[in-house]
Amino acid sequence: MDKVLIGDILHKVRKENPLVHNITNVVVTNFTANGLLALGASPVMAYAPEEVGDMAKIAGALVLNMGTLNSATVESMIIAGKSANDHGVPVIFDPVGAGATPYRTEMAGRIMREVKISIIRGNAGEIANIAGFQAEVKGVDAGNVQGNQIDLAITAARKLQTIIVVTGKEDVITDGITTFVGRNGHPILTKVTGTGCLLTSVIGAFAAVEKNLLAAAASAVTAYGIAAELAAERTASKGPGNFQMEFLDQLASVSGQHVIEKAFIEQREGE
Amino acid sequence: MDKVLIGDILHKVRKENPLVHNITNVVVTNFTANGLLALGASPVMAYAPEEVGDMAKIAGALVLNMGTLNSATVESMIIAGKSANDHGVPVIFDPVGAGATPYRTEMAGRIMREVKISIIRGNAGEIANIAGFQAEVKGVDAGNVQGNQIDLAITAARKLQTIIVVTGKEDVITDGITTFVGRNGHPILTKVTGTGCLLTSVIGAFAAVEKNLLAAAASAVTAYGIAAELAAERTASKGPGNFQMEFLDQLASVSGQHVIEKAFIEQREGE
Amino acid sequence: MDKVLIGDILHKVRKENPLVHNITNVVVTNFTANGLLALGASPVMAYAPEEVGDMAKIAGALVLNMGTLNSATVESMIIAGKSANDHGVPVIFDPVGAGATPYRTEMAGRIMREVKISIIRGNAGEIANIAGFQAEVKGVDAGNVQGNQIDLAITAARKLQTIIVVTGKEDVITDGITTFVGRNGHPILTKVTGTGCLLTSVIGAFAAVEKNLLAAAASAVTAYGIAAELAAERTASKGPGNFQMEFLDQLASVSGQHVIEKAFIEQREGE
Repeated sequence: MDKVLIGDILHKVRKENPLVHNITNVVVTNFTANGLLALGASPVMAYAPEEVGDMAKIAGALVLNMGTLNSATVESMIIAGKSANDHGVPVIFDPVGAGATPYRTEMAGRIMREVKISIIRGNAGEIANIAGFQAEVKGVDAGNVQGNQIDLAITAARKLQTIIVVTGKEDVITDGITTFVGRNGHPILTKVTGTGCLLTSVIGAFAAVEKNLLAAAASAVTAYGIAAELAAERTASKGPGNFQMEFLDQLASVSGQHVIEKAFIEQREGE
Repeated sequence: MDKVLIGDILHKVRKENPLVHNITNVVVTNFTANGLLALGASPVMAYAPEEVGDMAKIAGALVLNMGTLNSATVESMIIAGKSANDHGVPVIFDPVGAGATPYRTEMAGRIMREVKISIIRGNAGEIANIAGFQAEVKGVDAGNVQGNQIDLAITAARKLQTIIVVTGKEDVITDGITTFVGRNGHPILTKVTGTGCLLTSVIGAFAAVEKNLLAAAASAVTAYGIAAELAAERTASKGPGNFQMEFLDQLASVSGQHVIEKAFIEQREGE
Repeated sequence: MDKVLIGDILHKVRKENPLVHNITNVVVTNFTANGLLALGASPVMAYAPEEVGDMAKIAGALVLNMGTLNSATVESMIIAGKSANDHGVPVIFDPVGAGATPYRTEMAGRIMREVKISIIRGNAGEIANIAGFQAEVKGVDAGNVQGNQIDLAITAARKLQTIIVVTGKEDVITDGITTFVGRNGHPILTKVTGTGCLLTSVIGAFAAVEKNLLAAAASAVTAYGIAAELAAERTASKGPGNFQMEFLDQLASVSGQHVIEKAFIEQREGE
């Protein structure tokens, strides 16, 4: 993928300051808001069924995250999602913990049936679950995760007819036809809660300013991973506490130049 | 305003350790609690309708923040607010996002009708909205923001019969008769979520220990702004992540001496 | 208590990465998740009545924290607690603010009647309240806190038939027969919100990997206190903001060797 384009979209986020409406979980709300602010976007969290439709329609993107879902939140997500759909606002979905309980699997299915989702981001297990490939994921072992993860993403994208972002040691971004594989990021991200959730919201910020949603998603994943690398260079030896604050700082300072120097994302040939 | 008085009220907060009952939004809860603790106050968050009346009446101040309001929270706010009113506990209101959706405008109105509010803090747009001056605010442009912001605050205070704090590049604190304009603070505050909300709760802490609520509000705004300046001196070049932790540290260490050296608050003549 | 055993249990937490299901309050959710992750455990927050039973039964421990309880949360706690009881999952209870309002006292009683609790952690006032010793606690003054705190813990453990952890300047861990008194920790912990709540969840992580729950609780309290000391050595002079991030780092790096050097926990003779 063109590294200059990634920097350009990042620049547009900072210039346009898009409103990103998050209906997210109570664990990551503060971190998500601070991450979006640091990056240059304008976060808003609104949950009441009476207002989510009004908020979603004026947003640049709507992010639905089911990390601590309950029946009231799901109702609000559906109202907000339908309003976003009606007004051409892209909807990004993070099916946190799909598969962990039957309720989550069921609610993820309901959200996807009632709302047209533009981009879904999750780890391999979550994406497999919402695509109905539970069995195959259980069979994944360390030796062949990488290959499977790409296939999983592509198959899920085709089946669910949406852009799929599977994050892990490698990140896969695909619409089922064109597929990017990225390798930016740092393992310490797994020691800070909400780094996956924040990435989903950052994808929302990029999707708010770039109509090519596959490029937006791939660019967000790459810039986010580079910010993590920059922060890890300074703080990974200290630990996850100092890292998380430095990461916010690097989300604010990651630049097009950093992208050119550090981006590791390539289009996968063939299929 | 007398700088020694500001330091004295700050000192009283630390000495008396007032209980500040917050019914606030899910984005800023942790930051608000940590900010109040750092300052020397004693935060409590309680939301259940069964207990908010009991909690509010033993508090030194009640802070109502509608950042992520829903119908249940509004009910709890009204129960808590009436209990505070009955027991002489000052109520501080933060109409987050008033005007962003019709629901917020309506709920802000309902809270203000049912609860006697002592102090309201918001940005210019929020204050204009709750005072019913939407049109005038839309007309504000960069060239005449300052003048308008003072007029807005004074007019809102007179109309709503309460103390109004409008924060922004300049901060205006007024009861409609006496008006203070402050210039402490730092732009990086806008890059950390909840810095406005925390200020509202800090005003609550000051109002809990000082019966002259206008002096309490003006002192809180000034001390808070100075703590931000001290933190920015050390971390603004790093970014919003390191700043926010340093800001908590400076809320704990800002002193009467700092106030004397750095306070920039003056009473506005005339009107 | 054998210091090597404390280090061994700490090591088991890191090796086994136990799932700790938290139904906790909105103030501390993020900090709790980050603290558990830093330590090496695997936190999950799930609140919906439809799923808490499923989540609790696959967890290594269930932590119930009533910091911002409401009627819906209490229902979920009871469903989750019964499921944990049925599946042999230890339940740790943090009666935050018990006694502050009649509602909290009542709900704490209800939770303890309906769920079999393995370990309860609180401060002296909370433990006295749930054990029904309000009067005695009111009589506690600075001069005789230590003696009373030990007696309080033992009497509460016998009455409630559970392990009691009373934290404060000294920490007491007792099942009513065997009693440990610990003196690790640092006063700056009281300036960061949720450090008590996080300790309760850390006790859950230790209880998930060690069947001797008294040893698990005493080990958790000790390792946690040592991590706080290590963090305070580096940041206490800065303030509570920098301390809290360093504390997360030290939860990640506190080791068996640190325990051998710094643990201060002894079994109390007699009774």
